[in-house]
Amino acid sequence: MNAATDRPLRVALLGCGVVGSEVARLITEQSADLAARIGRPMELAGIAVRRTNLERPGLDPALFTTDAEALVTREDVDLVVEVIGGIEPARGLILAALRAGASVVTANKALLAEDGTTLFAAAEQAGVDLYFEAAVAGAIPIIRPLRESLVGDEITSVMGIVNGTTNYILDKMHREGVGFDDVLAEAQSLGYAEADPTADVEGFDAAAKAAILAGLAFHSRVTAADVHREGITEISPSDIAAAEGMDCTVKALAICRLEDGPNGAQAISVRTHPAMIPNSHPLASVGGAYNAVFVESRNAGRLMFYGPGAGGSPTASAVMGDLVTVARNRVRGAAGPGESTYAQREVVPIGQVSTRYFLSLDVVDQAGVLAEIAGCFADHQVSVQTLRQEISPRADLQGARLVVVTHRADDAALSSTVSALRELPSVHEVLSVMRVEGE
Amino acid sequence: MNAATDRPLRVALLGCGVVGSEVARLITEQSADLAARIGRPMELAGIAVRRTNLERPGLDPALFTTDAEALVTREDVDLVVEVIGGIEPARGLILAALRAGASVVTANKALLAEDGTTLFAAAEQAGVDLYFEAAVAGAIPIIRPLRESLVGDEITSVMGIVNGTTNYILDKMHREGVGFDDVLAEAQSLGYAEADPTADVEGFDAAAKAAILAGLAFHSRVTAADVHREGITEISPSDIAAAEGMDCTVKALAICRLEDGPNGAQAISVRTHPAMIPNSHPLASVGGAYNAVFVESRNAGRLMFYGPGAGGSPTASAVMGDLVTVARNRVRGAAGPGESTYAQREVVPIGQVSTRYFLSLDVVDQAGVLAEIAGCFADHQVSVQTLRQEISPRADLQGARLVVVTHRADDAALSSTVSALRELPSVHEVLSVMRVEGE
Repeated sequence: MNAATDRPLRVALLGCGVVGSEVARLITEQSADLAARIGRPMELAGIAVRRTNLERPGLDPALFTTDAEALVTREDVDLVVEVIGGIEPARGLILAALRAGASVVTANKALLAEDGTTLFAAAEQAGVDLYFEAAVAGAIPIIRPLRESLVGDEITSVMGIVNGTTNYILDKMHREGVGFDDVLAEAQSLGYAEADPTADVEGFDAAAKAAILAGLAFHSRVTAADVHREGITEISPSDIAAAEGMDCTVKALAICRLEDGPNGAQAISVRTHPAMIPNSHPLASVGGAYNAVFVESRNAGRLMFYGPGAGGSPTASAVMGDLVTVARNRVRGAAGPGESTYAQREVVPIGQVSTRYFLSLDVVDQAGVLAEIAGCFADHQVSVQTLRQEISPRADLQGARLVVVTHRADDAALSSTVSALRELPSVHEVLSVMRVEGE
Repeated sequence: MNAATDRPLRVALLGCGVVGSEVARLITEQSADLAARIGRPMELAGIAVRRTNLERPGLDPALFTTDAEALVTREDVDLVVEVIGGIEPARGLILAALRAGASVVTANKALLAEDGTTLFAAAEQAGVDLYFEAAVAGAIPIIRPLRESLVGDEITSVMGIVNGTTNYILDKMHREGVGFDDVLAEAQSLGYAEADPTADVEGFDAAAKAAILAGLAFHSRVTAADVHREGITEISPSDIAAAEGMDCTVKALAICRLEDGPNGAQAISVRTHPAMIPNSHPLASVGGAYNAVFVESRNAGRLMFYGPGAGGSPTASAVMGDLVTVARNRVRGAAGPGESTYAQREVVPIGQVSTRYFLSLDVVDQAGVLAEIAGCFADHQVSVQTLRQEISPRADLQGARLVVVTHRADDAALSSTVSALRELPSVHEVLSVMRVEGE
């Protein structure tokens, strides 16, 4: 090897928190293995942080700088790892790095879901890589399978548990029968949920991941704004109990589906919300802080990818896999796959997305009520699959409880039905309305 | 685009059976999507078959030839798909294709496990790709995750259900309590098992896949001859019942593990055999003809990949994913990752591989027997975790049944223990000896 090709590849690291410090450690400790796998040594060029005066054991203090902009555009930097998160300054730094000719590895789901296209265009123009396996489902290889393994197939749906915090909370509500607020408080005290849990429990985190997955699966441009988003804050112990009565589990899901669009064109639906799934479905048994992504395609059939969805080491594993890959690409002189949005499929409004629904309602127990309720569904073009009458556990109402499961119905039709049911004098209360997925 | 870069990439297909005909159909029917994903059109150049006079609906008869050698070395062929299987003529044809400058996609596990190194060396020398996602676990993306997603991590074990036929048979033995021979006969009549089932039920197929997985996971050269192989033909209904009594399931597993080698070096164990796994393990519920691969690594933790392990469409999906990837690599002017065997870890002989064991034996029911049995284990350095005495279901023996689970013990030590137990006058019969994995 001559001096030029033997020169170590140099990595600039943006951020040195839980993930960043782990990445720095792995680059340092695994240097012999990494060199063998890449075909050239790799080393840290610098680490951009907000404060350089913190103790960071095992890392050379000379590596640290607060001038991230200067670091990513340094001439000796070949590869940039961005693990600071958020929109700015991450976007500006990644663009500066790409334009300076560095390949970039990022775990930044929010940024990719908001403005991935600008970043991918900059990477394409510079002939460098932008990799992001760590942005969705932590250590689980899901980006590469969608971008590469399944690229010769037609993916029809992607359904995932992609947020460990909400999965932990729902799991605990199922196992212990306690309410959302109590479980959230406990999760916060244990560090499983943030002090401000909004991004997780309101579905913003899952929506960003859903946008990324949908874009990859359907070769289209999808942003977080395209994703219909419902959080888990309204899930009650009675919803959980109702799901159990149906032999189902409540999961917070990110769902991307190929749909029939207008004029025979293909379209996409993208959403994140809690839903019941049958206990026989592989996603039902994904517990605790684990993530899993279930993919269906025309030829491969049903695939599932399962593993730890968050945490410093798992996320660092995904970052390191990308880092070695983009380093190899650099050694071989060509970038990997770029953004693929040729299909430009439209995102269907949520009102036109159809799923099955579960409803439970307390009604007056008298002749004709059942017919009235059934008629209300029929009036709104919602076809009922099963309607079961139970004795209401609420003694004060002296009424009956109805449990209804519909055939697939448009979201808009179902919403109108629920509004109309709430107006009926014979209906005391609509207790639960939940989508049923995975059948 | 100028004429040169606009020229379609041309594919030679070797074999037109269940998988090949599906690949041919997909290349033809999905041509617009494939062109958009690759960045250049792709088309069939020819299909090599043994007999050209068969009806092959939807495919141009002019594509077919019996001269495979001439086809793969044609100047206009860029990409070769090999789905004929077996060692020769597949090896000669793949080598000829690579040397002629074509990239190759193959599903040929037997050939890769026997002589992958020769093929990878030829690909490296020609600067072209050799991809093989379809060789292990059908449609499940597992090669790419091991070669790329986890390449910045240290994989410590890979444990998979990689043979659908044996999984179907064992699943059926569990569910219906019937014997191996009966289930095999039924599987053959349904087409789930071959007329000559040797490759599946004796573990040759799984051994080839284990060799490929171990080589990738541990960056070492591993061939089928390195794999310790036990089939499932000896599994009896009483083994199945014993597993159920332990809240376990019997699965045919391919297991690749990082081991402590001599002088502090790392070594590898590679084996395929039936084993009990706890029902709580994610692999236990993988039923029917499905495959799944469970991977553990230092940083990512525990990952699982699940999906259809065989069949024309799933295997074709994997082939097509590789075909688009190698076509993209060609358009971008650089090959993807080659063979990585720098670590050169040694394969540990099976006698030195340690696992936990389950044993059941019928013994004479008299004072001192239990101590004698326990002493026999101790004499051979096998530490007993639990020893349970049951009333033997065999009234004729008027004896007791002992169920023993050991701590991790070397295979050699366990074998000596079993031989010694069989010599003891107080032991009527050693009924089951099975490894316990996945804990």
